[in-house]
Amino acid sequence: MKFGGTSMAGTERIRRVAGIVKRQQEAGHEVAVVVSAMSGETDRLVTFCREANPLYDPAEYDVVVASGEQVTSGLLALHLQALGCKARSWLGWQLPIRTDEAHAKARIEEIDSAALLASMAAGEIAVIPGFQGLTADNRVTTLGRGGSDTSAVAVAAAVKADRCDIYTDVDGVYTTDPRIVAKARKLKSVTYEEMLELASVGSKVLQTRSVSLAMKENVRVQVLSSFIDESAPPADSLPGTMIVSDEELEGLDMERQLITGIAADKNEAKVILTRVPDRPGAVATIFSPLAEANINVDMIIQNVGREHTDTDVTFTVPASDLDRTKALLDAQQATIGFEKMTTDAKVAKISVVGVGMRSHAGVASTMFKALADRGINIQAISTSEIKVSVLIDADEVELAVRVLHTAYELDGA
Amino acid sequence: MKFGGTSMAGTERIRRVAGIVKRQQEAGHEVAVVVSAMSGETDRLVTFCREANPLYDPAEYDVVVASGEQVTSGLLALHLQALGCKARSWLGWQLPIRTDEAHAKARIEEIDSAALLASMAAGEIAVIPGFQGLTADNRVTTLGRGGSDTSAVAVAAAVKADRCDIYTDVDGVYTTDPRIVAKARKLKSVTYEEMLELASVGSKVLQTRSVSLAMKENVRVQVLSSFIDESAPPADSLPGTMIVSDEELEGLDMERQLITGIAADKNEAKVILTRVPDRPGAVATIFSPLAEANINVDMIIQNVGREHTDTDVTFTVPASDLDRTKALLDAQQATIGFEKMTTDAKVAKISVVGVGMRSHAGVASTMFKALADRGINIQAISTSEIKVSVLIDADEVELAVRVLHTAYELDGA
Repeated sequence: MKFGGTSMAGTERIRRVAGIVKRQQEAGHEVAVVVSAMSGETDRLVTFCREANPLYDPAEYDVVVASGEQVTSGLLALHLQALGCKARSWLGWQLPIRTDEAHAKARIEEIDSAALLASMAAGEIAVIPGFQGLTADNRVTTLGRGGSDTSAVAVAAAVKADRCDIYTDVDGVYTTDPRIVAKARKLKSVTYEEMLELASVGSKVLQTRSVSLAMKENVRVQVLSSFIDESAPPADSLPGTMIVSDEELEGLDMERQLITGIAADKNEAKVILTRVPDRPGAVATIFSPLAEANINVDMIIQNVGREHTDTDVTFTVPASDLDRTKALLDAQQATIGFEKMTTDAKVAKISVVGVGMRSHAGVASTMFKALADRGINIQAISTSEIKVSVLIDADEVELAVRVLHTAYELDGA
Repeated sequence: MKFGGTSMAGTERIRRVAGIVKRQQEAGHEVAVVVSAMSGETDRLVTFCREANPLYDPAEYDVVVASGEQVTSGLLALHLQALGCKARSWLGWQLPIRTDEAHAKARIEEIDSAALLASMAAGEIAVIPGFQGLTADNRVTTLGRGGSDTSAVAVAAAVKADRCDIYTDVDGVYTTDPRIVAKARKLKSVTYEEMLELASVGSKVLQTRSVSLAMKENVRVQVLSSFIDESAPPADSLPGTMIVSDEELEGLDMERQLITGIAADKNEAKVILTRVPDRPGAVATIFSPLAEANINVDMIIQNVGREHTDTDVTFTVPASDLDRTKALLDAQQATIGFEKMTTDAKVAKISVVGVGMRSHAGVASTMFKALADRGINIQAISTSEIKVSVLIDADEVELAVRVLHTAYELDGA
């Protein structure tokens, strides 16, 4: 079980979490719990680090910020004890959770589960601070923001858990954002690949890394709400959304649709370079400097000009990187040889996602037709095996999501 | 060097501490720094634990409250780095600082100084969170409130430091409380025994345990102010008060007075039991139940009655334990056989302290005469090798301290 910062923010909420955890133990499960810091605490600690030194040493930054999860893990153990459960905290260095040496964005390499399994077998609930780990030379690391989801999946893999339940402030994964489409339906299940596509295009339920890890380790992940009624039936009735492998999905949800969900991402910006010389290596001169600057280029479209001597190149970058992108390309204009650069931050990416489209043709054309029927102009297109994405005007994003939700027959009652 | 919570309370103050530490390194010293949590932080964390469970598990309490010092140790390392120093934090479990298993009030057993010495020899400033340690089975412990002073002395002993500088919010140890006697003088030096007597009778400069440890390990401790001018001469000129052994004291301070200081303690309460039967074991029936209840009895005076069949017994306990003391003795009235119990919380203990009194007679009589001359009534007397204490009315404490400060010729210019 994993609980985020909102669920751990203060005595009353931690007490509530303890109640939810206790019910799982009473239902016959051995339980390990991974916790985030109280919401706001990590920000407070990061601010202290920045004030100390804007170019802070990430090793010492990790010592400071890892303390937030240490506090909540001890407190949840105390709350569980107050409810009569046996419980103890296991800090990252105590298990240990071994990571690489990339401080402030470490990756988990190995979790020693021996002590954990012995403790759980003895009826103790194990409470583990998320987000933190230990290098080979015994220094504290953290996994980067949102890393507690990854901690939870890694612990679940290490103890070979039946399930990793991630309690969030939403009650599952929906066909699309319910704030945009009132008829959005909660999904019983999605595959890892679908969740990755949904996560990376703006559905902020789970950290992408945690889903990748779950896929790699084949951990069954359930997303569900931490604001459920504590007196409700135990979570074995799976009230949330299960994230599983392709194979398992068949058994869980026979009646699933061709398309699993529709995601919208407004944090994109479009860049058009006109009249780029059409010669070998020209495109590399555009994207190499961006890659070196760690700017993540997403959609790329190349329109060859009529005379086949030059082309227009359109691509998208995160809106927050647009200014840096412009500066880098302006500096390289002579080398690249483009005529003009135009940019537009008022764009949005809409994606339809579903493993079903592997075996069904016509998914993309349904999308294009539905949008055209409502006069929504498509500025760029990209596809993957289980996803079709289009770039449209940001003003039309809500309309487009609603139109597509209906077009793919996702609307609930 | 050790800095308390007031010195570590926020970015600006930690930056100031970093400057003081850097100046010591620039003066040619290898430096280890022990830090407390930001003032208020430990209270905040303790409150969370109490809210979780009033009868909290001290092992989990330790996990929670140890985080405060972890934060400040990382932050001080960052601030030192920002000033161009090499610095790193060493958490209690990283060195490790081994303690017994008495969670929330652990005692340090051993500090492995190998890594610390290697790091310091390489020019790195070692920053160590105070207050925390590690049991043999790798669980976090804390040393009890004020334990960071003890951590500092223990680290100084482990690395065989030339000196342990404890920065506090006073600039040294005075002949008496300067708020009571304007002419109180700062002492250049006191012995461990004197400091213990001064600390235990209300001079709250250092935690008693840290002084005991310094005496046992023969660590030279300097008390000085963390609010010194950073541009002042380096601390080698010893601006504070040195706490040293008897032997070393001679060399440091030839001109010292017979009496080192005068301490006042208002946190005492007096209990009088009248007509206790004068038979063997009678006194034990009074004090055994108090000892079992962990109530610390201080002064005890027994006045044998005129007929030698019963006696009056007067003693003092901490004022905070007076109600429990009354309840315990009331319950035992028949067993003890006293006639009446009277109590008085409006008393104060005045002590004159000095190693010089070992070789000088007349110290006590000077005290009694000076107080009598001003009409101050002595309610009880106790003495040790280097201390004479009297119990007086609490209203007369300031007057008594001033009278004695003059009588022992301690007044400064």
